[in-house]
Amino acid sequence: MMHTAPPVTVLGLGLMGGALAGAFLRAGHPTTVWNRTSAKADDLVARGATLAESPAAAIAAAPLVVVCVSDYDAVMNVLEGPLDDRVVVNLTSGTPSRARELAEEVVRRGGGYLDGGVMAVPEAVGTADAVLAYSGPRSLYDAQKSALGSLGTGLHLGDDPGLSATHEMATLVLMWSMLDGFLNGAAILGSAGVSATAYLPVARTAIDMVAGWLPGYARQADDGVYPADDGTVNTHLTAMRQVVEESEVLGVNSELPRLVMALAERAATAGHGGSGYVALVEQFRKR
Amino acid sequence: MMHTAPPVTVLGLGLMGGALAGAFLRAGHPTTVWNRTSAKADDLVARGATLAESPAAAIAAAPLVVVCVSDYDAVMNVLEGPLDDRVVVNLTSGTPSRARELAEEVVRRGGGYLDGGVMAVPEAVGTADAVLAYSGPRSLYDAQKSALGSLGTGLHLGDDPGLSATHEMATLVLMWSMLDGFLNGAAILGSAGVSATAYLPVARTAIDMVAGWLPGYARQADDGVYPADDGTVNTHLTAMRQVVEESEVLGVNSELPRLVMALAERAATAGHGGSGYVALVEQFRKR
Repeated sequence: MMHTAPPVTVLGLGLMGGALAGAFLRAGHPTTVWNRTSAKADDLVARGATLAESPAAAIAAAPLVVVCVSDYDAVMNVLEGPLDDRVVVNLTSGTPSRARELAEEVVRRGGGYLDGGVMAVPEAVGTADAVLAYSGPRSLYDAQKSALGSLGTGLHLGDDPGLSATHEMATLVLMWSMLDGFLNGAAILGSAGVSATAYLPVARTAIDMVAGWLPGYARQADDGVYPADDGTVNTHLTAMRQVVEESEVLGVNSELPRLVMALAERAATAGHGGSGYVALVEQFRKR
Repeated sequence: MMHTAPPVTVLGLGLMGGALAGAFLRAGHPTTVWNRTSAKADDLVARGATLAESPAAAIAAAPLVVVCVSDYDAVMNVLEGPLDDRVVVNLTSGTPSRARELAEEVVRRGGGYLDGGVMAVPEAVGTADAVLAYSGPRSLYDAQKSALGSLGTGLHLGDDPGLSATHEMATLVLMWSMLDGFLNGAAILGSAGVSATAYLPVARTAIDMVAGWLPGYARQADDGVYPADDGTVNTHLTAMRQVVEESEVLGVNSELPRLVMALAERAATAGHGGSGYVALVEQFRKR
């Protein structure tokens, strides 16, 4: 028996929504699309998608409804009409509390709800490199796993629909910090006439080192035990003070190393000067 | 003809210095060591190292002298006696200006100087996974490349002896930012009952994504052109405001996302709201 890809609907055809619909089409799903401005659907329609006249018509067309619009207010607006036997997979960014509200609303109207986030650039959607993280009832996820697999590698975070948004928040802070750390480093090296491109091999080595430490560091954060095997908070503080001073000498921005230093100083003041770096997690847990 | 590993000297046997001497021993170098407190040499001596009575005696014992002590003042103190025909490889952390001073001093006393940094935990020293970055005259580096290869993978950053310290500064900012970003993320998820260990797969995906963007981003930073192919500064700002607000709601520290937001706001004010994220590099270049 030939496997037939089930029909799907995609609401919202921005950069990411368009990529999601395109991935479904490539995987052979009969794909219905809708967008506020219908011109954005032209290319998808040329590739075999069906353009619905309204969100309600799009929702009626398939049991799996993927939503990727600007914000949660926009999600509320497009979820018109009955949602009986529909599974809404909301890939729009938002807060955990709004995700839970939305889940309640969808369930109240007869549907199932999964929240999710796309950890990929639009170009990578539809390949195994694209990771999509979902939260909401496990049974719902399992039932849609095969269809969602057309979008990339799926990851189920837990039954609480808010978990995807919480993970997204955490991940954004990590990504921005990493990007800012790289750009700050590029600025420091730029002051010595070194290009950002020339910085790449060293930066990549540093990133791989830190990534390699994280599994052990995560255990320490969970256990609340911070051994100083690879250097104490006080050792880091000495280096941080040096970096802040030298940033002033070089005439580059010192705000990021200053914040890094302030957090480490607070950890030392709290009695963790002789602990390992992960002791700083306690500072991040405080308002 | 059998290849014989040349004799080497290691001054300073802290965690890292001990690992360096151990790597030289494993690679078959006749290794002379010295440390302020000689008991730290016991294990190395048992493995075949020769303990020198003084730094001057250790320096006299081998043409290649690796120094790894607490700071540059300590380097000055251990570099006793004549340095004729010695190549001093200083792996102690410090500032670019101090590295240049030290290079001048060593050259004045008849020696050659390379500054360097070890990008590895002590346990990895002596394996290809350990990256050691050096700066100073290329010809000196090339002459010592084979012996230094016993410590790990070597990388020559340029002829200016200060470059290694500048790279180290840049790299430390990147590593601290990344660690703080991860710990902040762990704190956010902790508030929702998710462990740092459970956060790892998503965090790793985020790190790999950002690492994959850096080559393109580095080119943008060098060219001063910031296309918004994968999102504008304004789009990021919307998400940053949401993360700052939600951090308050969750009762976790919001200082890091606040700084990230302030920098992006300044980039937008400077006319880069519609540019890509790399436009922030201009904010880092400013005092």
